[in-house]
Amino acid sequence: MPDRSLIFPAEEYRCRVMALQSQMRRRQLDALLLTTPADVFYTTGFLTRFWESPARPWFVVLPATGEPVAVIPAIGAELMGRCWISDIRTWNAPDPVDDGVSLLADTLISLVPASGRIGIPMGLESHLRMPVADFLRLQSLIAPRRIADGTDAVYRVREIKSEAEIEKIRATCAVADAAFERVPEFAHHGVPLSRVFRDFQVALLQEGADWVSYVAGGAGQGGYGDVISPADDRPLQAGDVLMLDTGAVREGYFCDFDRNFAIGRAADDVRRAHASLHAATDAALASLHPGMLARDLHRILSEALVRQGAVVGGGRLGHGLGLTLTEWPSVTPLDTTELREGMVLTLEPGVEIAQGRIMVHEENVVLRAEGPELLSRRAPTELPEIME
Amino acid sequence: MPDRSLIFPAEEYRCRVMALQSQMRRRQLDALLLTTPADVFYTTGFLTRFWESPARPWFVVLPATGEPVAVIPAIGAELMGRCWISDIRTWNAPDPVDDGVSLLADTLISLVPASGRIGIPMGLESHLRMPVADFLRLQSLIAPRRIADGTDAVYRVREIKSEAEIEKIRATCAVADAAFERVPEFAHHGVPLSRVFRDFQVALLQEGADWVSYVAGGAGQGGYGDVISPADDRPLQAGDVLMLDTGAVREGYFCDFDRNFAIGRAADDVRRAHASLHAATDAALASLHPGMLARDLHRILSEALVRQGAVVGGGRLGHGLGLTLTEWPSVTPLDTTELREGMVLTLEPGVEIAQGRIMVHEENVVLRAEGPELLSRRAPTELPEIME
Repeated sequence: MPDRSLIFPAEEYRCRVMALQSQMRRRQLDALLLTTPADVFYTTGFLTRFWESPARPWFVVLPATGEPVAVIPAIGAELMGRCWISDIRTWNAPDPVDDGVSLLADTLISLVPASGRIGIPMGLESHLRMPVADFLRLQSLIAPRRIADGTDAVYRVREIKSEAEIEKIRATCAVADAAFERVPEFAHHGVPLSRVFRDFQVALLQEGADWVSYVAGGAGQGGYGDVISPADDRPLQAGDVLMLDTGAVREGYFCDFDRNFAIGRAADDVRRAHASLHAATDAALASLHPGMLARDLHRILSEALVRQGAVVGGGRLGHGLGLTLTEWPSVTPLDTTELREGMVLTLEPGVEIAQGRIMVHEENVVLRAEGPELLSRRAPTELPEIME
Repeated sequence: MPDRSLIFPAEEYRCRVMALQSQMRRRQLDALLLTTPADVFYTTGFLTRFWESPARPWFVVLPATGEPVAVIPAIGAELMGRCWISDIRTWNAPDPVDDGVSLLADTLISLVPASGRIGIPMGLESHLRMPVADFLRLQSLIAPRRIADGTDAVYRVREIKSEAEIEKIRATCAVADAAFERVPEFAHHGVPLSRVFRDFQVALLQEGADWVSYVAGGAGQGGYGDVISPADDRPLQAGDVLMLDTGAVREGYFCDFDRNFAIGRAADDVRRAHASLHAATDAALASLHPGMLARDLHRILSEALVRQGAVVGGGRLGHGLGLTLTEWPSVTPLDTTELREGMVLTLEPGVEIAQGRIMVHEENVVLRAEGPELLSRRAPTELPEIME
């Protein structure tokens, strides 16, 4: 029976740790302090939905050499004990007096010289998953050791996916592909959008998702108003454009793409919008290559949309993907992150069909030396019409 | 058609804001800065799964008087515009140069006097959902205004649920009750635990969950090893005890309870363990009343287990519940939070049947003046046996 608590062989985690330690040396960091589900899973293989409870902080300390040290609530000891690391220190959480802070401080003091620098991810798209008051106390307990910016050390490693990771993301994309294939079974004229959202989640689970961390979408006459609202109970009707977007999870890895459907015959402007999004994605698939910057991808997508006569939608037109629904970089005019071989990205062009009516389109790719390789099954050229 | 983007009438949110502002006055806070999905939803009604993307920070500033001000990414403007608040300030996120920090600083400066104190939740079970580097920059931009501890101001209000909130939690509990009722349909001898987890999530969605933020559980001969691991592919077999635990979500409110099942005939020690957990819950239902402390509830539960001859499991034996899977307080020997009328709590006794074999049991209640009122349907006295 495969023990799914580990997901990858220990060697995969050892490679990650060595890559992080190489980055740490370049940046004069004597340790990394990691607190988020993604960073803890990435370094240890510790995968659980228990993060949904905000009650307890969890810590992984990665020293300059050697294996990561887990400093975690005792309730996690059994599962962490099945992971590849051996140094696991626990406390009984939640503790209103000292919720792991002195145990973490002792660990850092034992691993980092007094003059040392401890990196935490603190930049764009990051957060620290522990109470601010405890973080302030930690800083004074570990002085003169200093907290430093470890964002780049973590991001430059995590953003390049191993082949093993790419296969996981490809498998999750296949789950969503199969679920999207079944949308016409449950989404048609007269069905409330809220029921469509439920049935889509059911389909994702039946097709192999371990859980469904994200489903969004929209439906409206000739386009939808936004893409982040919960579903309402309005029944689908002829003339609607339905969009479903999902971040399903299998073995800890996300997909993130969407599909559009016309309920009944699609109006001309809707078909044109879909065609322009498809063409813009084709342009990116044809011309993206390693060494470009995230903002170059934004330019490729938006110029292709303009060539199609479309009005480019606001917001970013893609992003990284893997351990969370979205990862850096962001495909915006401002993001100068280099796009490198092994990055998994979403291509997410959006257009405004008319005031308050938008359409978005998304594919998942891995960037290879020769260009993007699709991980999602390419959306059909023509917008599918659900005719009853 | 009900616009489910608001969930409650504006009056509900106004009452919450007034209660928070009353706490702020008592604690000399001139504003609250809120960053988490739960705190933003609580004050504005803004409910979306888009929080799953860690890319963008979202802010709500609650001044000493008047309505909350939303300082949010432009992608949320449409949905926030349908909420009850009117002052919505947006920026194009993610912005690698200034991801809302100067807009947030300007907002705080305009609402808080130079000598003022801005509270953030920074205590036990909290975290700040924004990059640490941006938080440090914010502190210097708003000086001489100071960041202060706003934990109690927020917790003392949020922990008392309104009748409208209690009805939402009751409705979510009913979804889980109905799904637990169906477990014998899909969980029996020979079915892999991973498929049971999937089918249980499907049942929750079919019974009315909007989404399923949490499913955990375990299965093992005569008890399970832990309660936070992902499901493995081991088929259920006679002699197993199966436990399923869920935090399903409907209209933004969680349930959090579990149920146990024997696969085939239950062994004597398993039936005794279930009976002791049931009896301990009965003891809490009979004797808990407002004015007790969280640690008193821990004592009631653990003393009742000991009276039954059981070995009390480690960890907390219950917690708050509502907008997140778990909320403060924690039912531990250390938590001195007063249990007050209107709190929604889980009663979660656990026992160790033998080395490495545990059993847990959970109900959801609201604390009334006269004692606890069940929100979950009381588990059966006898452990249900699934006989093929």
